[in-house]
Amino acid sequence: MKGWKRAVLPAVMLCALAGVANADDGESLLATVRGVDTLWVLVAAFLVFFMQAGFGMVEAGFIRAKNACNILTKNFLDYCVASIMFFLVGYAFMFGTGGSFIGLSGFGMDGAANPSGVSPFAFWLFQAAFCGAAATIVAGGMAERMKFHAYLLYTAVISAVIYPIVGHWVWSGEGWLAGLGFGDFAGSTVVHATGGWAAFVGTVVLGPRIGKFGADGRANAIPGHSIPLAALGVFLLWFGWFGFNPGSTLSVGDGNVIGRVAMNTNLAACAGAILAMVTVWALYGKPDLSMTMNGALAGLVAITAPCAFVSGAAAIAIGAVGGVVVVLGVALLDRVGVDDPVGAVPVHGMNGVWGTLSVGIWGRQALGLARDGLLHGGGAAQLGVQALGAVCVSLFVVASMGLVFLTIRKTVGLRVSKAEELRGLDIGEHGMEAYAGFQVFTTQ
Amino acid sequence: MKGWKRAVLPAVMLCALAGVANADDGESLLATVRGVDTLWVLVAAFLVFFMQAGFGMVEAGFIRAKNACNILTKNFLDYCVASIMFFLVGYAFMFGTGGSFIGLSGFGMDGAANPSGVSPFAFWLFQAAFCGAAATIVAGGMAERMKFHAYLLYTAVISAVIYPIVGHWVWSGEGWLAGLGFGDFAGSTVVHATGGWAAFVGTVVLGPRIGKFGADGRANAIPGHSIPLAALGVFLLWFGWFGFNPGSTLSVGDGNVIGRVAMNTNLAACAGAILAMVTVWALYGKPDLSMTMNGALAGLVAITAPCAFVSGAAAIAIGAVGGVVVVLGVALLDRVGVDDPVGAVPVHGMNGVWGTLSVGIWGRQALGLARDGLLHGGGAAQLGVQALGAVCVSLFVVASMGLVFLTIRKTVGLRVSKAEELRGLDIGEHGMEAYAGFQVFTTQ
Amino acid sequence: MKGWKRAVLPAVMLCALAGVANADDGESLLATVRGVDTLWVLVAAFLVFFMQAGFGMVEAGFIRAKNACNILTKNFLDYCVASIMFFLVGYAFMFGTGGSFIGLSGFGMDGAANPSGVSPFAFWLFQAAFCGAAATIVAGGMAERMKFHAYLLYTAVISAVIYPIVGHWVWSGEGWLAGLGFGDFAGSTVVHATGGWAAFVGTVVLGPRIGKFGADGRANAIPGHSIPLAALGVFLLWFGWFGFNPGSTLSVGDGNVIGRVAMNTNLAACAGAILAMVTVWALYGKPDLSMTMNGALAGLVAITAPCAFVSGAAAIAIGAVGGVVVVLGVALLDRVGVDDPVGAVPVHGMNGVWGTLSVGIWGRQALGLARDGLLHGGGAAQLGVQALGAVCVSLFVVASMGLVFLTIRKTVGLRVSKAEELRGLDIGEHGMEAYAGFQVFTTQ
Repeated sequence: MKGWKRAVLPAVMLCALAGVANADDGESLLATVRGVDTLWVLVAAFLVFFMQAGFGMVEAGFIRAKNACNILTKNFLDYCVASIMFFLVGYAFMFGTGGSFIGLSGFGMDGAANPSGVSPFAFWLFQAAFCGAAATIVAGGMAERMKFHAYLLYTAVISAVIYPIVGHWVWSGEGWLAGLGFGDFAGSTVVHATGGWAAFVGTVVLGPRIGKFGADGRANAIPGHSIPLAALGVFLLWFGWFGFNPGSTLSVGDGNVIGRVAMNTNLAACAGAILAMVTVWALYGKPDLSMTMNGALAGLVAITAPCAFVSGAAAIAIGAVGGVVVVLGVALLDRVGVDDPVGAVPVHGMNGVWGTLSVGIWGRQALGLARDGLLHGGGAAQLGVQALGAVCVSLFVVASMGLVFLTIRKTVGLRVSKAEELRGLDIGEHGMEAYAGFQVFTTQ
Repeated sequence: MKGWKRAVLPAVMLCALAGVANADDGESLLATVRGVDTLWVLVAAFLVFFMQAGFGMVEAGFIRAKNACNILTKNFLDYCVASIMFFLVGYAFMFGTGGSFIGLSGFGMDGAANPSGVSPFAFWLFQAAFCGAAATIVAGGMAERMKFHAYLLYTAVISAVIYPIVGHWVWSGEGWLAGLGFGDFAGSTVVHATGGWAAFVGTVVLGPRIGKFGADGRANAIPGHSIPLAALGVFLLWFGWFGFNPGSTLSVGDGNVIGRVAMNTNLAACAGAILAMVTVWALYGKPDLSMTMNGALAGLVAITAPCAFVSGAAAIAIGAVGGVVVVLGVALLDRVGVDDPVGAVPVHGMNGVWGTLSVGIWGRQALGLARDGLLHGGGAAQLGVQALGAVCVSLFVVASMGLVFLTIRKTVGLRVSKAEELRGLDIGEHGMEAYAGFQVFTTQ
Repeated sequence: MKGWKRAVLPAVMLCALAGVANADDGESLLATVRGVDTLWVLVAAFLVFFMQAGFGMVEAGFIRAKNACNILTKNFLDYCVASIMFFLVGYAFMFGTGGSFIGLSGFGMDGAANPSGVSPFAFWLFQAAFCGAAATIVAGGMAERMKFHAYLLYTAVISAVIYPIVGHWVWSGEGWLAGLGFGDFAGSTVVHATGGWAAFVGTVVLGPRIGKFGADGRANAIPGHSIPLAALGVFLLWFGWFGFNPGSTLSVGDGNVIGRVAMNTNLAACAGAILAMVTVWALYGKPDLSMTMNGALAGLVAITAPCAFVSGAAAIAIGAVGGVVVVLGVALLDRVGVDDPVGAVPVHGMNGVWGTLSVGIWGRQALGLARDGLLHGGGAAQLGVQALGAVCVSLFVVASMGLVFLTIRKTVGLRVSKAEELRGLDIGEHGMEAYAGFQVFTTQ
C-alpha cells in the first residue's frame, strides 16, 4: 500500500498542478483519492488537537481548585511549545533520514520527508498534535507542585527531542523497531508509554504533594475539585481518540480498516470503563466514577497499539484487562509512595505497555501485522518483539527524562516553595484564581 | 439506490483486496465512493457519540450538585453497557433477519447483515451510538432518586432488547412499519420517542423527588446547580445532531441530501429556541434560559424524523411548534404531578411524536418519502401511517418498560432511601462528591 | 477553478438524478468530487457552529457569575436569530446580485445564487455559522450591563444587514473590494473586524461597568468567575477555527491547500499564545493565563485573512505579532477608559485589522493572492488595498452600528438599571441564577 502511494505521488502532483478538469479521469481519480485521504487526516488531526482540551479538563477537574489555572496554563503552553518545536526540529528528528536512531533532515519543514500519501502539511499537523499529547500527559502526574518555568523547559525538550526519537524508532521507515516488525498502530508505546513513564520519573524526582502520605506512609485521598469537568474531559478525550486511532490509517481506502479501528476503539473504552467499575466496586465497595473514567481511558490507551490488528472480541478483552490494570496500578503507586494526582502513570504508562503487549497476543498478520500473535498460531515471536520495544522505549524515556528533570532541579529548580504549594500555584505562579467570587477551601 | 449498493459490493470488495491501483477506473471509483461514504458515516458516528457528553452535561447541570456524580456515572455506564450489549445481541435483534417484529441473526456481529453501503464496523458504531442515546435519555427523567444498580439493569434491557425491536420495525428492511412506508429519517420515533416514553413510565413508577410537589399539589421549582454546564451540554447535543441527522443518509452522493438535512436541522433548532423563549416570556414574564435551551432540543428532536423530506421553511415551522410544545409539556407534567427533572418527556417523548406526525404534514414524495404529505396534496394517508407508528411504538415502550421498571422495583429496588435522597446520591451510591473544596447547600 | 465548477454543475445534477451507477465514469467522478467537497464544507460548518459554544464559554467564564445566564442567553439567541435572518434576507444581501454594494436576490433562499461548487444548503449553513460568529463577538464587549431585548434588536440588524453588506463587498463576485483584489481568505475583516468594531462602538455607547474605573480613572480588574470554563471555550474556538479557515477553501482538491491552511492556523495560534504570555510576563511579572488564551485567539484572528496565502514561517510571525497586539490593546483600552470585559476589541477588532494588513506583507501570488506582498517583491500595492479594505469596513461598521446602538438607546433603552447591574442580570432579566446551591459573592 505504501509502495503504491509513493509510485503515484508524482502523477498526483502533476495532476494537481494541471488542474483536475484538464487531467484525464485516471489522474483526476488519483487526485480525488489524495484529497479524500487528506480530508480524513485533517479531520483526525482536529480531533487529536481537541484531546488537548480533554487532557486540560481531566487534569484540572481531578486536582484542587487552587491549582486549576496553573495546570491549564501548562496544558495550553505544552501544546503551543510542542507545535513550534515540532515544526522547527521535532518533525526532522522523527521523519527525516539519518539512521535507525534519529532523523536529521527537513528542519523547519524545509524539504521534509513525507512518508504519507497526503498533504505534507496535513501530515505534519496530525503528527504535531500527537507530539502535544505525549507532552501534556506529564502535566497531570506532576500537578500541584511543579514550577511553571520548569514545565516550559521540560516540554521543549520532550517535544523537540525525546518524543521524536521514540517516534523515529517506530514510525519512520528507518527506525530499528520498525525494522523488527514492532506493531504500534497508533501509539500505545510511542505516545502513551512515553508520556506515562516521563510522568512517572517526573513525579518521583519531584516527590509527593504535601499531605498526600501520612506519617505512617498511608496514602490520603486528595479529591478533585470538579468531577463534572473531569467527566467532560474524559468524553473529550474519547471523542478525540476517534481521530487518534482511526486517523492513523492515514488513508480511507474502501473504508474497512477505518471502520474496524473505530469500532475496536469504542469497544475497548467501554470494556475498560465497565471492568474498572466492577473491580473498584468489588475491592472498595462502591462504583467510583473517577476510577470508572480512568478505566475508559485505560481501555483507549490499551487499544491504541492493536486497534487495526485485532477483532472486536479481542478489543473487548484488551480494554477489559486495561480497566483492571488501572485500578491495581493506582493502588500499587499508593503503596510504594508515588504521588500521581490524576493517574497518568497507570493510565498511560502501564496501559501503554499492556496495549503494546496485547498486539503480540491477539494481533493477526492478515490484518497487517508482521506476524500472527500468540492466540493465532504465530507463537511468541511477535510478543517478544512487542516486549522488547515496550521495555526499550520505557527505559530510554525514564533515563533521558530523569536526566532532564534532575538537571532542571539542580539549575532553575523543579518544585515551588512549601508556602506556595499550600496557598496554591494559581496565585503564586500566575497571580490569578480560577473561581473568583466563590469561596473555595484550600486545605492541605 | 440501496439495490445499486448491494449489487456493486462484491466488485468493491474485490477491488479493495486487489489494491486500488490495479483495478480499472470504474472499480476504483466505486471503492473510493464506498470509502467516502464510510468516512462520512464514521465522522457522523463520532458526533453522535459526542452527544453522550452533551446529555451528561445537560442532565448534570439541570439537577442539584449533590447528585451530579451519580447522573454522570449513569450517563457514562449506559453508553458503555449499550455498546457492549448492542455488539453482542442488539444489532442482531435490530438488523438481523427473522421477521417483521424482531431480527434473529448476526449475534456478536458474526455474519451480521449490513443494510448499508459502508463498512459494517462503521455502520455498527453509528447504530451503537444511536442506541446509547436512546438509553441515556431516561437518566434525566429518573434523576436524583434512582438506585445505581437498578439503572444498570434498566440500561442493559433497553439497549439489548427494547430499542432494537423498535429499530427493527422501522429501519430494518423486514420491519412492519417500514413496510407501511412509515417515515422516520433519523429517529424522532425510534430514538427519541423510545427514550422519552421510557423516561415517562420510569418517573411515574419511581414517583416524584422529595419536595417537588407541595402539600397542595403545586410544583416547586428545583433549580439546576450549573446552568453554564447545561448550556455547554445543549451546544454539544446540537453539534452532535449534525452527525445524527445528516449522517443518517449513510451516503454522501452529490451532496444535496446531506446539505438539505444539515440546513433543516439547524433551522428547526433555531426556531424551537426562539419560539420556546417567546412562549415562556409571554406566559411567565421572563425569557428563561433553561426553557430556551430545551426549545432548541425540542426543535432538534422534532426535525429528526422529517429532516430529509421537507423544505427549509417547513423545518422552521416544525421546529417552532416544537418550541411551543416543550413549554406546554413541562407545564402539563407539573399539573398532573409527574416529576421529570430535566424535561426528558416533553423534549424527547412529546416532540418525538410531534416530529413523526410532521412528516405526514410537510413531507414530500420527491424528497424520498413514501407518499406526499397533507400540505402537498397527498391527503391524510401518510399522516395516518405516521400516527399509527408513533402510537404503536409509544405504547410498546410504555408497556414493556413499565414491566421492566415494576420488576426492578419488586426485586432489587428502584429508589434510594429517603435519607440518601436528602443527603445526595453522590455520597450514598459512589462515596464521592462533585465539588470538593466548595461549600454546596444541599437543601430539599 | 470557479468557472470550471459552474460549467460542470448541470452534468453533475443530471448524474445525481440518474443515479451514479448509470452515469459514465467521468460524470460519476464529478458527482463524487462535488459530494466530497460538500462533505468537507458541512464538517467545517459543524465546527464553525461549535465555535458558538466556545464564544459562550469564554464570555461566561471571563465575567462574573451573576451575569452568566444572561450572556449565555444572548449567545444562544444571537446564533438562532442570525440563522433565521440569514435564511430570510442576509444570504440574499450577501450573495445575491444587485451591484458592488449589496445583493438583492434570493430572499428566503428562493432561487438564491450559489457561488460555490457544493450543495447550496451546505454553503448556506457554512455562511450562516459565520454570520452567527460575527454577531456573538459583540456580546462579550457589551457584557454585564446591556438589556436583553436591546441585544435581540442589535443581533437582528447586524445579521440581517450589516454583516451581509460587508460580506458582499469582499466575498461576492460583484463586491467592490473583491474587484480590487482585496485578500481576506476566511474573514479577518469580514467576520472579526466587523464583530470587533461593532463591540467597540457598542461598549463606548453603553459606557463602562459600575466599578470598572476608579475616581482617578484607573482601571480595576474585574476577574472572571470561571477560568476553567473560559479555557474550555478557547479550546472550543480553536477547534472550531479548523472549520473556519480550512473550510473556507470550499473544496478539497488534492489536499494541499486545505493542509496548508490548517497548519498555518495552528502555528499562528501557538505563536500568539506564546508571545502574549511572554509579553505579559515581561510587562507585569507573571504569565497570566487569561492573556495567554487571548493571545491564542489573537493569533487565530490574525491568520484568518492570510491563512492560504502565506508560508508556515510567516504564519508564526503573524500570530506572534497578534499576541503582542492583544496585550498592548487591552492596556490601551484600559488607558482610554473603554470597558471591554472579555477583550473582544483587541482580539477581534485590532487583530482583524492586523491580519488583514499582514496579507499585504507576507502574501504570495503563487498561493492565490491577487499580487505578491511587500516581502515577496510585490511592493506596497497589495498592502494598500488591504489597508483600504480594513479601514473602509471598520468605518462602515462603526458608523452603522453606532447609529443602531444610539437608536436603541433612545427608544427601548440599552442599559439595565444600576440596581439590576449590581444585583446581576441573571435575576433581573431572566429570573434565574447560574449556580443554585453555591454561595457566590456578587460584589461590585
